[in-house]
Amino acid sequence: MSKTVTSSAPARGPADHDVRTQIVAAATEHFSRYGYEKTTVSDLARAVGFSKAYIYKFFESKQAIGEMICANCLCQIEAEIRAAVDEADHPPEKLRRMFKSVVEASLRLFSQDRKLYEIAASAATERWEATLAYEERIRELLQGILQEGRQAGDFERKTPLDETVMAIYLVMRPYLNPLLLQNGFDYIDEAPGQLSSLVLRSLSP
Amino acid sequence: MSKTVTSSAPARGPADHDVRTQIVAAATEHFSRYGYEKTTVSDLARAVGFSKAYIYKFFESKQAIGEMICANCLCQIEAEIRAAVDEADHPPEKLRRMFKSVVEASLRLFSQDRKLYEIAASAATERWEATLAYEERIRELLQGILQEGRQAGDFERKTPLDETVMAIYLVMRPYLNPLLLQNGFDYIDEAPGQLSSLVLRSLSP
Repeated sequence: MSKTVTSSAPARGPADHDVRTQIVAAATEHFSRYGYEKTTVSDLARAVGFSKAYIYKFFESKQAIGEMICANCLCQIEAEIRAAVDEADHPPEKLRRMFKSVVEASLRLFSQDRKLYEIAASAATERWEATLAYEERIRELLQGILQEGRQAGDFERKTPLDETVMAIYLVMRPYLNPLLLQNGFDYIDEAPGQLSSLVLRSLSP
Repeated sequence: MSKTVTSSAPARGPADHDVRTQIVAAATEHFSRYGYEKTTVSDLARAVGFSKAYIYKFFESKQAIGEMICANCLCQIEAEIRAAVDEADHPPEKLRRMFKSVVEASLRLFSQDRKLYEIAASAATERWEATLAYEERIRELLQGILQEGRQAGDFERKTPLDETVMAIYLVMRPYLNPLLLQNGFDYIDEAPGQLSSLVLRSLSP
């Protein structure tokens, strides 16, 4: 299990933190059974056995709870991607693993649980903070691999690094986004291999 | 205006063809005013002043009418892309123009008319025949440019042609699909330039 993201709001002590965790756990189960859109904060309050007002002491809205669930999901995906990248020794292979694990980890999480997919889809459509931060971290991971590959002489150095990072990120992006992913199923098996080979050809020194 | 696609059903004479065209024109207007999902064949019959049974003589379902509208739209987009490609003399520039015009033509058509977007989205999600045929023609156009570039010595020839076509098509695909396009707005200005530069780097001999 990867690290769990806690809210950006300042923690009010360990007991508060436990209550938040408890609410998020109950909400995850409730959303995944009844769906995110259909569930209200009242439903959640009933499910956890707290008053609605008490829940609002910890989260300002249903979306705030959804954001935390989403952040946890994205953290899991990210941890899987990082683990896959770390298994490889050389930057070209790291890049291949990154493409492969991006597709596999995202697909597994989003299709395993149709209801969680619904939260992830809202997050992607409405550009929730958690999604933006996740995309930024993925870009940084990519940039690290590219820098390492440039230093090792595996990758060309003529193109400005920023440009290379952005272009490869654009190639990868459809496979990070649950909405886009849902529409790419036809090619899901070949895509990671084909795209990483193309990208590696574009990087040859 | 580009060529108009007619149904795959055998035409039953020029008068029948006119009636079909008339139904498609009325349906296009009706869908774009009231939406594709909400409109029934009865609504259309009323709007055109024909009986519902008469419309069913020409189209077996609302989807069949939607497919024809969709096919006409995709033909327009394709004509724009081909015109842009034909303006360039050399394969690398043709490829740049192709990326640029794919994004521009698709965006214009899909965002110009939100209601037509709805039809295009159904077509893409449900993999309508018109969409599949369109995707195939785009792949052929791409293959033609790549073959020309290989012959002219602009592009590398080590990678099997099929593989190169497929990989570049996968890079382009998010910008052909209205559903995917809708989720790429953040990067819509830079994407064509960045992606075509990356692809060209991958093709260097």
